[in-house]
Amino acid sequence: MKPDGGSLIGFGSSGAGGATFKAFDPAKNTPLEPTFLAATSADADRAATLAAIAALALARLSGADRGKFLRAIAANLETKADDLVARAMQETALPEARLKGEVARTVGQLRLYAQAAEGGDWTDARIETAQPDRKPLPKPDHRSMLRPLGPVVVFGSSNFPFAYSVAGGDTASAFAAGCPVIVKAHPAHPGTSELTGRLILHAVRDCGLPEGTFSLLFDAGFEIGQALVQHPLVKAVGFTGSVKGGRALADLGAARPEPIPVYAEMGSVNPVFILPGALAERAAAIVDGLHASSTLGVGQFCTNPGLIVLQRSPQAEQFVKDLAAKLAGTPEGSMLTAGIAKAYATNTGVRAKQPGVKVLAQAKTAGACGAAPVWFETEALSFLGNHALAEEIFGPSSLVVWCKDRAEMLKVAASVEGSLTATVQAGAAEAKNYGDLIEVLVTKAGRLVLNGYPTGVEVSHAIVHGGPYPSTSDGGRTTSVGTRALCRWARPVCYQGFTDDLLPVELQNANPLGLWRLVNGELTKAAVG
Amino acid sequence: MKPDGGSLIGFGSSGAGGATFKAFDPAKNTPLEPTFLAATSADADRAATLAAIAALALARLSGADRGKFLRAIAANLETKADDLVARAMQETALPEARLKGEVARTVGQLRLYAQAAEGGDWTDARIETAQPDRKPLPKPDHRSMLRPLGPVVVFGSSNFPFAYSVAGGDTASAFAAGCPVIVKAHPAHPGTSELTGRLILHAVRDCGLPEGTFSLLFDAGFEIGQALVQHPLVKAVGFTGSVKGGRALADLGAARPEPIPVYAEMGSVNPVFILPGALAERAAAIVDGLHASSTLGVGQFCTNPGLIVLQRSPQAEQFVKDLAAKLAGTPEGSMLTAGIAKAYATNTGVRAKQPGVKVLAQAKTAGACGAAPVWFETEALSFLGNHALAEEIFGPSSLVVWCKDRAEMLKVAASVEGSLTATVQAGAAEAKNYGDLIEVLVTKAGRLVLNGYPTGVEVSHAIVHGGPYPSTSDGGRTTSVGTRALCRWARPVCYQGFTDDLLPVELQNANPLGLWRLVNGELTKAAVG
Repeated sequence: MKPDGGSLIGFGSSGAGGATFKAFDPAKNTPLEPTFLAATSADADRAATLAAIAALALARLSGADRGKFLRAIAANLETKADDLVARAMQETALPEARLKGEVARTVGQLRLYAQAAEGGDWTDARIETAQPDRKPLPKPDHRSMLRPLGPVVVFGSSNFPFAYSVAGGDTASAFAAGCPVIVKAHPAHPGTSELTGRLILHAVRDCGLPEGTFSLLFDAGFEIGQALVQHPLVKAVGFTGSVKGGRALADLGAARPEPIPVYAEMGSVNPVFILPGALAERAAAIVDGLHASSTLGVGQFCTNPGLIVLQRSPQAEQFVKDLAAKLAGTPEGSMLTAGIAKAYATNTGVRAKQPGVKVLAQAKTAGACGAAPVWFETEALSFLGNHALAEEIFGPSSLVVWCKDRAEMLKVAASVEGSLTATVQAGAAEAKNYGDLIEVLVTKAGRLVLNGYPTGVEVSHAIVHGGPYPSTSDGGRTTSVGTRALCRWARPVCYQGFTDDLLPVELQNANPLGLWRLVNGELTKAAVG
Repeated sequence: MKPDGGSLIGFGSSGAGGATFKAFDPAKNTPLEPTFLAATSADADRAATLAAIAALALARLSGADRGKFLRAIAANLETKADDLVARAMQETALPEARLKGEVARTVGQLRLYAQAAEGGDWTDARIETAQPDRKPLPKPDHRSMLRPLGPVVVFGSSNFPFAYSVAGGDTASAFAAGCPVIVKAHPAHPGTSELTGRLILHAVRDCGLPEGTFSLLFDAGFEIGQALVQHPLVKAVGFTGSVKGGRALADLGAARPEPIPVYAEMGSVNPVFILPGALAERAAAIVDGLHASSTLGVGQFCTNPGLIVLQRSPQAEQFVKDLAAKLAGTPEGSMLTAGIAKAYATNTGVRAKQPGVKVLAQAKTAGACGAAPVWFETEALSFLGNHALAEEIFGPSSLVVWCKDRAEMLKVAASVEGSLTATVQAGAAEAKNYGDLIEVLVTKAGRLVLNGYPTGVEVSHAIVHGGPYPSTSDGGRTTSVGTRALCRWARPVCYQGFTDDLLPVELQNANPLGLWRLVNGELTKAAVG
């Protein structure tokens, strides 16, 4: 399997006329074949039109058939994993083991969402039976459930070429909810994107689903992405990437004649609060754990711990000294793209010049797209007075914030921006005395980690991967990972006075799918009437 | 109980300095005492600051205590119902029986949401227990549930001075979710608003809740509402009113440095599709039903049927003739405000001059704020070519759209804007042959009514009162009525690696509240471990 460089629009390919670009090998610092052809606005229009037609058919599809489709995609990815990983290694410089693991995670995610679609409980079926004799007015029969929104546009991220890209969480959850998907391929891994897209299209055909269920569009710039978000037939958007990019798309979505939801997962500083008791009990283990979490994948994770908050003490100073020594000896790694490597160099350079900021550790770097840890330290007062210090630097750079006491640590907690995660390292009996800190952090993050590290996101029913702005564009009301993610692509529809034969199967009296349903206020799997 | 004209800010009242205005009796066309003092931006800031402090305490409050608070408000409304109704009759010209019914509905709504808060299942508690031996990496313990967003600003509507105003659905659901509420009082019923606000404050004090749990601000203009939506400490907004007003607030919310959700329930044309079989079976009953639904409350309901779609036939023509005769004989009623009455006169005048539009029925009107039915008819082709005809006219005016056949009816269905409701009147075996029509309408509305009328909104678990834009600002992903409304004011938070004593009670092993929880993928009330 090799990419040929064309967009995949329904069952056809893109027209001629767009600009061209090539993928790039960041480890070897060279362009990669083939040449990719950017889609045109006519291509975007055709993809949206096909998706809108497919949307009505997908909405009718049973959960079992949606599950079958997702499982077919998963099987195709498994079968072609070697081809996918080989191309992704070239395009991202990520190591083989990591990429193999990521394909496995993506496959597992597709199967978990297949299971959710097949089960059907995510549709939140609710029934209120009629009371014809109620006074003063009869009560009609009301039955409601989540129904798909329609065509979804997905922007994959550069840092997860599988799990958050073409067949990643946004695409899988949108398919599971019954929505067609148009992916705007990330230009950092177009070949990986095309190969994955073709595997999705094979599944579309094998499952007999309509043309327009899936399209994949290339563009090296922003025009096609913007055209898709503004297209009147598009009903929702998923995005993973920078605050700047995500906010621009969210603003476009909000400014449309018909505004649509834009679920952008963006920047996250992921603060870590290390309490005195934790250092007293296991400073060495936290040095190792934090070092590993902050340098994993050359720091290119959305859950990378970017802010380390400590109360100053001799023990804390020794802890930071040990951590700095370990960071300084960390070898450089190749970043995902030349652009990311350049931004990392620029942003760490700017931070080094901020008032009250000192370089704490700086490892050696040499390669064109290489990056090594650069850590900083500052006092809480400097941090509180300079908003630039609260922002994420994408890569293996973190800022240690020194607080003079517990009260100042609380002030820092109250001042941090919204994050995907917030972590507390505490001694055995210490966390319960820091209830005020935890309460503040609940308002700041979607996932609170106690005595662990923020990197590593489980794909499960209970996970939350989303948080207050700027970590997501929607105020953290949703998650982009886990089965709750399906609900992003749906809205409740209520059927009043419908007879059984006219209702979706989820709402029929006999409950043929065996769903948990809220019937007259009681959760039950029983049939109605 | 009589209003004194001041905003209620926490436990205090507004400062001096704002503009003044008076309420207005639309039936008598005269101003009402007392003079109301508009709040200042300093008042708005104080209300938001108090709310942000109260938010942490309310988030900690148990569901049982939230329920107690809502029940205290309900009891206060019942005790003072006569005073409330007397003032509301003056300010709205709505009849006593309607207003008494609306107070009862508001009380019932508060108690239903109290029950939801007490029960706790709405928090969607999910638990994934740890697997320390999992390969390649241990699986941590993850527990997640919905937590309150923080301070909520509510803009009540003019047409429901109780059910969608100060103590209405938005306020009640936000309190139930654990959020403090700042109401911007509707200037059409400021006295009713103040009396209701005082009853809420009595409940705040009686339940020992913190200052800032509730505030009520007056303003005759837009400044205070805008200041509240833009205040950095405000985390969400509820609104019921016009498309223009709701969209302006949604745009403000989206453009903030930190965007926040604005749940605006706005304009809705509520199309009614009358199929040939329905007319063959029960034309006379539909004349009566549609006449009643469209003239109820002088047509001032958000679910008023504004578009009647028919296939032309002698039977359909006779049906419309009978309906028109009944409409022409309908007495005028007083509208809620002089502004609404004026807009109704203007909008019906504009519509009468649209190409291809004819006046079908026009009842007599005389009073200053009075309005009587004005119905129009047009051909499908004219309707499809003129977007102005697809928009709502607030009041007892509807547009009959004549289709030459079924295919044209489907085209009209595909072209209508998003609505709160869509109705189909069908013969006994006819609806199942119109599956395509119903499928299109599912994408257009939040509630589909078969062989009924759109007015009359149940407050229940299964109701959906929300639909695609422009009927709501959020694409119909939520409902402003029913227990699903609580979820609008919350976001999921995941606790990783927390010990039992540090977890919210909803997520503790023993399940002391007896909640339905998704434990390792299975819904259960059982304890964990």
